[in-house]
Amino acid sequence: MSAFVCQNIESILPQLRIMCGDRVDTSFAMRLQHGSDETWNLDAPPDIVIFVKTTQEVSDIMTLCHLHTVPVIAYGVGSSLEGHYAAICGGICLDFSMMNAVLEVNEKDMDCRVEAGVTRKQLNMYLRDKGLFFPIDPGADASIGGMAATRASGTNAVRYGTMRDNVLNLTVVMADGQIINTAKRARKSAAGYDLTRLFIGSEGTLGLITQIQLKLALIPEIVISGVCHFNDLRGACETATEVLQYGIPIARMELLDNLQITAFNSYAKYHLPEKPTLFVEFHARDRNVITHEVSEFKNIAEQYGGTDIQIAEKTEDRNRLWKARHELFWANKSHWPGKDTLSTDVCVPISSLAECITQTHNDIKETNLVAPIVGHVGDGNFHVLIMFDKSSQQDVQKVKGFCDRLAQRAIDMQGTCTGEHGVGIGKRDYLLIEFGPAINVMRDVKRSLDPKNILNPNKIIVL
Amino acid sequence: MSAFVCQNIESILPQLRIMCGDRVDTSFAMRLQHGSDETWNLDAPPDIVIFVKTTQEVSDIMTLCHLHTVPVIAYGVGSSLEGHYAAICGGICLDFSMMNAVLEVNEKDMDCRVEAGVTRKQLNMYLRDKGLFFPIDPGADASIGGMAATRASGTNAVRYGTMRDNVLNLTVVMADGQIINTAKRARKSAAGYDLTRLFIGSEGTLGLITQIQLKLALIPEIVISGVCHFNDLRGACETATEVLQYGIPIARMELLDNLQITAFNSYAKYHLPEKPTLFVEFHARDRNVITHEVSEFKNIAEQYGGTDIQIAEKTEDRNRLWKARHELFWANKSHWPGKDTLSTDVCVPISSLAECITQTHNDIKETNLVAPIVGHVGDGNFHVLIMFDKSSQQDVQKVKGFCDRLAQRAIDMQGTCTGEHGVGIGKRDYLLIEFGPAINVMRDVKRSLDPKNILNPNKIIVL
Repeated sequence: MSAFVCQNIESILPQLRIMCGDRVDTSFAMRLQHGSDETWNLDAPPDIVIFVKTTQEVSDIMTLCHLHTVPVIAYGVGSSLEGHYAAICGGICLDFSMMNAVLEVNEKDMDCRVEAGVTRKQLNMYLRDKGLFFPIDPGADASIGGMAATRASGTNAVRYGTMRDNVLNLTVVMADGQIINTAKRARKSAAGYDLTRLFIGSEGTLGLITQIQLKLALIPEIVISGVCHFNDLRGACETATEVLQYGIPIARMELLDNLQITAFNSYAKYHLPEKPTLFVEFHARDRNVITHEVSEFKNIAEQYGGTDIQIAEKTEDRNRLWKARHELFWANKSHWPGKDTLSTDVCVPISSLAECITQTHNDIKETNLVAPIVGHVGDGNFHVLIMFDKSSQQDVQKVKGFCDRLAQRAIDMQGTCTGEHGVGIGKRDYLLIEFGPAINVMRDVKRSLDPKNILNPNKIIVL
Repeated sequence: MSAFVCQNIESILPQLRIMCGDRVDTSFAMRLQHGSDETWNLDAPPDIVIFVKTTQEVSDIMTLCHLHTVPVIAYGVGSSLEGHYAAICGGICLDFSMMNAVLEVNEKDMDCRVEAGVTRKQLNMYLRDKGLFFPIDPGADASIGGMAATRASGTNAVRYGTMRDNVLNLTVVMADGQIINTAKRARKSAAGYDLTRLFIGSEGTLGLITQIQLKLALIPEIVISGVCHFNDLRGACETATEVLQYGIPIARMELLDNLQITAFNSYAKYHLPEKPTLFVEFHARDRNVITHEVSEFKNIAEQYGGTDIQIAEKTEDRNRLWKARHELFWANKSHWPGKDTLSTDVCVPISSLAECITQTHNDIKETNLVAPIVGHVGDGNFHVLIMFDKSSQQDVQKVKGFCDRLAQRAIDMQGTCTGEHGVGIGKRDYLLIEFGPAINVMRDVKRSLDPKNILNPNKIIVL
């Protein structure tokens, strides 16, 4: 009797050890680290962890796993939130942290090529002297491979788009070990099916992304951040909507509700009024332009009750603000000590944002939850950060009911059950509601590219 | 013996007539119109043409065709250029021109929903009082369904993106008649596989697009067009490259070579110097901003030998210029009477654009072709408009050799064999060179979604 969840591993383990040596790790601690996350998803350690080094090696491993029907799961830095890498069928976890080379930067074309394990902060550090940056910022220092696989976005998406918009080409290892490139390096193409976009957001279920050609953006010459307080959530949401309708090319527009401001203040040593607040940022090439944009924003905000608008132009002030914004998870952990955290997200058409957030806020009160709301409101995307006790069955049921209602509310408003976190295990049921018969098409695609169901099996869809 | 190329049609024709009445057309003239184009692709009339009216009707037809293995080809306005709708296996052509309703406009969300047969000019006429427009402009008054199916772009793409970037949701009828929606209406989503992008550019081979939810853009408050002449192609290309590197948010940047200017002048009654020329356009919300952008452009152009920069701000002057730009096909037809036209396109990384255009220009001279070059140079995309005699075997061979070298040159420079025209029949061979093993993945996807190979068979890839 094998000790492995996936018993077929036994027969290929000696070959894996010959191929990868001591980069094959079967220790319990390593397996647990690669099979559990900060959320309420099941701890499901893989049977073994391999720290991969090259695309060819990933291909060799997939060839073996395909022959012997062994599940394979890709792992970046473990920052995903919906149980994406839980090894629910056992198998092998491929850790990409050793594939962390920036392979090329084409300054004139404003693109670069990286291995999947490069993190976004590492890349931006590498680029900092070139006047270019990689603009997708999900907060966590995620790996670029993981960000592509989950179609990540974050605070800058309102101006710079999501991973969908910023990848030119992917190197992908298919289920049977075949290595493909999904495109060349041109900015646009009408040649054949858009395989690049098919793999972006496929969460490792259709192929393993090993290299990514990324678009880069010019570092803006002038950056101004600001904070603006509102009497109610609706005023903040309406401001966001109108900023977009005026075509103000704002770079970030983040909503924090009053409860979130409370935790933010105590963690980051700020003294913001405990009111719904927009954090905004403007990027421009010219001082007159940015001054005009800031004044337009102020005019709109004031119409909706926005007051006490504070502007930060110094780099250190801006960095302090956004660093604190990105550490809300830890702010909440520290403000509600001992509580577990669940971060869920939905995204709705901007015209429904105020209504969706208001209804959700009421639901939080009625359900008696501790759950700050944080939104990338320029995209119609917002998060609810639920503080609860995952060992309490009652708490879990209450939170589950709330999440179900939230997803249904977003879908009813012609939105989506996840704007940026992805599906993993956590949102599979909502996907059926959101897509109806289109799920059959997704199933057909999955079956055709992974007929043995070995690539991150039972994530996104269950066959 | 049936008179049909696809003999299986015989058995379902009575049912089709019951379903669609006199919208089923078997006349030779109608069939020929729906199976021939302006290019050198084979005339291949479908066996019958049906003018469809609703998504449900398309679904009913597909259900029958799937049962009886009858090929189905979608037809918009017939402006595609690579033999996309040639009925090379016979079958039914579905003409979408009667599905031409604008179904909804959501002004606050800046999106709209249209039937596939709505044309882009019709849509922009419909929208004109709302301060919004649909920015993708391929020149021809193409149908939105056709533009989605071929991943169209055009002159505005450098600022507004291509069809890939401007579709929120598609209603698609699958090979077996199943009706799906690929998404909801949120601006971003991480929910499941990106079926929207899978169907965009699939040229009717994976499903039939019947409705499209489109993003719209704000009509710019101020628009300025300009014309600038250069001593050589390289100067014009380097200007385009540097404009992008400075981050000037130019809306259009079109290159016409000296030969093209000659035909342009004589057709449109202009008197531009017969030199490589950039047509540019700036869109902005503020006069100071646009004035600054125009002056930055002039500074860059002058560095590369750009002279005699003329600015047009009046709507009628701008319209006259762009209308003439969009009628180059007819300008060339009139300047070289009796000649056939072939318009081919490639797209390369911007750093290779000057070199690719220069080499191509030399190739045209060496091959002794009459072939003006026109480029959407802000994207690295350019067209060669070849004037030749398609009844001359020698001409055809010469042109074929040139096109082969052009595609190979673009691919060697990490570009693509088509930036916006698509593959159809004309570029299938190049796709094998461009994608290598990724073609197998495309084949797998095609087989899984259209197992009987009835959706526009043998376009893009041959199974």
